[in-house]
Amino acid sequence: MWTMSWDAEGAARAIAAATESGMDFIEIALLDPASTDAALGRQLLNKAGLPAVCSLGVPEHYWPSKNPEGAIAFLTLALEKAAGLGAEALTGVVYGGIGERSGQPPTQTELDNVATALKAAAKIAKGHGLAFGIEPVNRYESHLINTAAQGVAIIERIGAENMFLHLDTYHMNIEERGAGNGILAGRDHLRYIHLSESDRGTPGQGTCDWDEIFATLAAIGFDGGLAMESFINMPPEIAHGLSVWRPVADNSEQVIGQGLPFLKGKAAQYGLI
Amino acid sequence: MWTMSWDAEGAARAIAAATESGMDFIEIALLDPASTDAALGRQLLNKAGLPAVCSLGVPEHYWPSKNPEGAIAFLTLALEKAAGLGAEALTGVVYGGIGERSGQPPTQTELDNVATALKAAAKIAKGHGLAFGIEPVNRYESHLINTAAQGVAIIERIGAENMFLHLDTYHMNIEERGAGNGILAGRDHLRYIHLSESDRGTPGQGTCDWDEIFATLAAIGFDGGLAMESFINMPPEIAHGLSVWRPVADNSEQVIGQGLPFLKGKAAQYGLI
Amino acid sequence: MWTMSWDAEGAARAIAAATESGMDFIEIALLDPASTDAALGRQLLNKAGLPAVCSLGVPEHYWPSKNPEGAIAFLTLALEKAAGLGAEALTGVVYGGIGERSGQPPTQTELDNVATALKAAAKIAKGHGLAFGIEPVNRYESHLINTAAQGVAIIERIGAENMFLHLDTYHMNIEERGAGNGILAGRDHLRYIHLSESDRGTPGQGTCDWDEIFATLAAIGFDGGLAMESFINMPPEIAHGLSVWRPVADNSEQVIGQGLPFLKGKAAQYGLI
Amino acid sequence: MWTMSWDAEGAARAIAAATESGMDFIEIALLDPASTDAALGRQLLNKAGLPAVCSLGVPEHYWPSKNPEGAIAFLTLALEKAAGLGAEALTGVVYGGIGERSGQPPTQTELDNVATALKAAAKIAKGHGLAFGIEPVNRYESHLINTAAQGVAIIERIGAENMFLHLDTYHMNIEERGAGNGILAGRDHLRYIHLSESDRGTPGQGTCDWDEIFATLAAIGFDGGLAMESFINMPPEIAHGLSVWRPVADNSEQVIGQGLPFLKGKAAQYGLI
Repeated sequence: MWTMSWDAEGAARAIAAATESGMDFIEIALLDPASTDAALGRQLLNKAGLPAVCSLGVPEHYWPSKNPEGAIAFLTLALEKAAGLGAEALTGVVYGGIGERSGQPPTQTELDNVATALKAAAKIAKGHGLAFGIEPVNRYESHLINTAAQGVAIIERIGAENMFLHLDTYHMNIEERGAGNGILAGRDHLRYIHLSESDRGTPGQGTCDWDEIFATLAAIGFDGGLAMESFINMPPEIAHGLSVWRPVADNSEQVIGQGLPFLKGKAAQYGLI
Repeated sequence: MWTMSWDAEGAARAIAAATESGMDFIEIALLDPASTDAALGRQLLNKAGLPAVCSLGVPEHYWPSKNPEGAIAFLTLALEKAAGLGAEALTGVVYGGIGERSGQPPTQTELDNVATALKAAAKIAKGHGLAFGIEPVNRYESHLINTAAQGVAIIERIGAENMFLHLDTYHMNIEERGAGNGILAGRDHLRYIHLSESDRGTPGQGTCDWDEIFATLAAIGFDGGLAMESFINMPPEIAHGLSVWRPVADNSEQVIGQGLPFLKGKAAQYGLI
Repeated sequence: MWTMSWDAEGAARAIAAATESGMDFIEIALLDPASTDAALGRQLLNKAGLPAVCSLGVPEHYWPSKNPEGAIAFLTLALEKAAGLGAEALTGVVYGGIGERSGQPPTQTELDNVATALKAAAKIAKGHGLAFGIEPVNRYESHLINTAAQGVAIIERIGAENMFLHLDTYHMNIEERGAGNGILAGRDHLRYIHLSESDRGTPGQGTCDWDEIFATLAAIGFDGGLAMESFINMPPEIAHGLSVWRPVADNSEQVIGQGLPFLKGKAAQYGLI
Repeated sequence: MWTMSWDAEGAARAIAAATESGMDFIEIALLDPASTDAALGRQLLNKAGLPAVCSLGVPEHYWPSKNPEGAIAFLTLALEKAAGLGAEALTGVVYGGIGERSGQPPTQTELDNVATALKAAAKIAKGHGLAFGIEPVNRYESHLINTAAQGVAIIERIGAENMFLHLDTYHMNIEERGAGNGILAGRDHLRYIHLSESDRGTPGQGTCDWDEIFATLAAIGFDGGLAMESFINMPPEIAHGLSVWRPVADNSEQVIGQGLPFLKGKAAQYGLI
């Protein structure tokens, strides 16, 4: 929400904002791992006492479905940076590009390539002491992994202990037959969830059924990370990748001032915090 | 739904209707245990291959809160009849009358009396090989036990292994902060649930959030009894006890023809059947 | 929420609390019209610049269903007090007692008596320049008028221009096949609504579908009064009438601090404020 | 649901299936207007007594945003075919391609071009006695018109009486802050709605809040077309355009056998049919 460039200025602003908003951790978008100054970021995070999770999508040149070796190289660097930042995990669309669509259902070759790349990356992550997450996204943002069940399938195929499922209520709203069903399908591997409204705007003001989401999370004994996500203040290239063509909230004050208390209230109502 | 008198005629009609509707078991209202012909009922149930659960509320003369000894005598007879019918459990408002309200919050003495009566009854039930359930009902039908949490409290106080919590979505819709929350509060003891719509009419046509209900049931690994409940075809004295003053469904065909497939569809969607 | 006795102390406290909470008007429970000091109340309301609506249920001695003449006398006094307070309307369970249940569906004689009493009262209200409302309540609080459709029927039977329908989401949650359906049934006469959660606790933390409620209100062009209602801080006799046996919210700060912003946010989202 | 090619075989199959399923009208996808045999279609529709609505998206070569003259030519032909088929309206993504995304918010030039093309097409439609609809689609399927409010804006800019807004619950689930809000925003121009589940599968088994949708439609007095939409049985090129990579329902029997009765039941509950 606060920065798309993890440079000195952006990192400082995001860490200050997260701390001020009462966040328990921060998710850092590793949009360009190569240019990330991990040492500086670690210093700022340490000073603020703020744990971090890193997330990313893979640039087209390194898409695992087509170029598993390139993907491994890319993810290796990203994992080094995540470790350098002192993050606990790297997660997101680690299996492909945000917007990657072949125009066909995923082929066996594509899925094999993805499994190859992720298996290697999971091992490298383990060497760094990092957990490694996989986030299904909706049909428009990837043709590869859209549902919790598909995420589970690839995690179980790879069989690495440090891999986990990362769900996102925005994507689930499009893909799952009820968010509860997605949580149920992913329950054995779910350790992280993006709480994102149906329009990627202010949580509590869209179509997500938050009571169902929190009740089901509580019922499966979820104790992973609950991360509010909203997309405002984006540079054009990110808005493009996410297909956000209009402001989805009035401003970040609305998201923080209304959406965050809403989510915290619901999480408390269901005993999750 | 089919009879309020478990006599030869009523029993035969109800068993035939339940079988025809594809029910896996039948719930028998033991409105007047003394006059129940258990042997005949058992014969009919056996012939139909239909398992049974018995339910009741306690007549005023035997209310546990005021007359624990009388309650024990009443429940002892009811448990004998339930055992005689070959039922698996006796459940319902076993802790008081349907409509029992002192006009005050429950007192410690009332709760002590209830615990005394239920503890004795649970032991007798055990001797019969019967499970013994307790169904919280809404604030208007009892001042004693309205929420899952209150049901759990008395079950844990008594500590009998054969006691279980029996929830009802109709009552939860009034008392719980989300049906999911009630299921969560009761999860350790929940073995039976009445799937009853918010107006006691046709399931799927009221205000109950069935996705939340089934998602949470699936998430806690519920494998107890799912019983559709609707109140039509009632004699005046029962309508009185339940405060039903108008038809809550067009007819029983609507409940069976629309409500039952709706519930079965949702149960299947969440993997519960 | 703030007082059950409209004496000097209670009135001052309630008016101060309503003003401080940013309410646009206050609803005054005329629990005992005879003892209400209307002149003092009017003075305090004027000073605070706070419009008022009065509400009540009829004491058993004056129940319209049985004693229409007595009811007219009672309502005449209540209307005088409401006018004396400078209120805009008298509303509520004007057709009977809170908790009045004969144990049978309403008879034609009962409904005739109610219509006689309300017709006379509506005329007296008109003389005072007061609107006169009728609030359907759930099956346990009255056997006479439970649904919007029943409220509309009696309003249209009487045919007085100053009569209006007053709905309450708490009761609708039990009686209507979706709150939207109740609003639709009452649309021609609906001018006032109690926004009350399913457990009478903090709005936004129960089972009411607030999006459906506000969307439907907006769609019918509702421009009447939106009144938050919650029942805490009640003396035992009122708790008894309403069958509230436990605290339904932690405290009034929770209702005002969480429930009120929730309702205001949703009303704004749907363009109602 | 039944055919993607409106040739003799496909038309006959679709008309037979629609009639058998109890549909009151059929929506014909004019995927390739030039090759559509309108005379044959009209004959089959007349014989079946089935009214029709035509829908389409614009091929890239004729996108209104870039090539308004080409778009006019394309739409002119499509309107001739729709008129030839005896349809009542042409609607859909008439303002662009399904999947058209520039990567930027819509520019003023693009919107001007769209308005120019649609204004001319609306006039031609009028000459044929055809209504002319515009369907906002989600952010991934177009960057031009995603919300009801955006659809209304262009309709009101053009000012043609025969233009109408066509909403789709699948897209609204992603774009509107509650489907009710979208219906409210579009109420003055809404004459057609696609009832499509959140995953484009079986209605009643996803995340759409159907009670809110039907309650709001009833409340605005909607009397336009209610069209069930589901995407199964698609050729690869259509699946590509819609980004459907997996079966979203078990089969068309599930959609017709479960989804259609669900929608009809809800429409009846809210008095819409």
